[in-house]
Amino acid sequence: MSTTKDFGVWEGEVTTELPAKFDDGVYFIGRIHTPWKSRKECPKNARESDAVCTVELEERWAPGLKEVETCSHLVLLYWMDQSPRNLVRQVPGHYGVQRGTFALRSPARPNPIAMSVVKLIKIDGNRLSVVGLDCLDGTPLLDLKPYFASTDSVPDAVVGWHKQRG
Amino acid sequence: MSTTKDFGVWEGEVTTELPAKFDDGVYFIGRIHTPWKSRKECPKNARESDAVCTVELEERWAPGLKEVETCSHLVLLYWMDQSPRNLVRQVPGHYGVQRGTFALRSPARPNPIAMSVVKLIKIDGNRLSVVGLDCLDGTPLLDLKPYFASTDSVPDAVVGWHKQRG
Repeated sequence: MSTTKDFGVWEGEVTTELPAKFDDGVYFIGRIHTPWKSRKECPKNARESDAVCTVELEERWAPGLKEVETCSHLVLLYWMDQSPRNLVRQVPGHYGVQRGTFALRSPARPNPIAMSVVKLIKIDGNRLSVVGLDCLDGTPLLDLKPYFASTDSVPDAVVGWHKQRG
Repeated sequence: MSTTKDFGVWEGEVTTELPAKFDDGVYFIGRIHTPWKSRKECPKNARESDAVCTVELEERWAPGLKEVETCSHLVLLYWMDQSPRNLVRQVPGHYGVQRGTFALRSPARPNPIAMSVVKLIKIDGNRLSVVGLDCLDGTPLLDLKPYFASTDSVPDAVVGWHKQRG
């Protein structure tokens, strides 16, 4: 089970009762290495940083990288294991407005799975160098996928509550 | 634990030994309703279908939808619970070439989490109508996220092994 560290429930936030048990399990298949050792240091979003981060895959999964080097961009799924899972409405500090968890990219969500699109720089054995992450050093990796512009890219998508910020 | 139904290990495919135990757990937060009752019926990819599918969120999570209606597109994460998790190299039937699991969007992967970008049509209470899915009816939902074009859209991304198909 995850523990709550940097997070608390703030005024205006709403929690729900978690189910009694998990429905299935995840394997951590590797770790992400970044320059950021605390939440305060992390960039507010991945576009703020061009730091090269390293994804280290466990050896047992390394054969799964065949032909990944032909991809310019990847989808990374990783586990935000320091976040509470029972928040349904949140008041992010930098906005100060209550919104639903599913309208936010906050790490606090029922399944703390983060999704980032990264640019692949190179692969050395079981280590990938990528640009486009904003997570803590040591974050557990769940998955790597090829990014297909044909289905994954929607340049004119709009998040209405965020629109005024571009 | 997931079970293997439609899948088998085909010639040229490579498996690895799974870890002895899970590292953490997932909650199924709802179900996805689609017109497709078997893998054969599912569209090969989400762009082949403009079927409106329904995402039904469990009541406990419904307050998390506040302001989701302002989003034109969402990222859906869901659990491909009928897939084997130990395949590191696969030979997808329609290509006939062996590739690494992480170069494919196959549901067979260590953590069988699928990611789709969908267009939001409407929200009625705890039910969302969306376009852009290709999964089986009844697929368990893990997460909904707002799709931000600024970080999620990369129109010029390339998957080299797939390039000849556009």
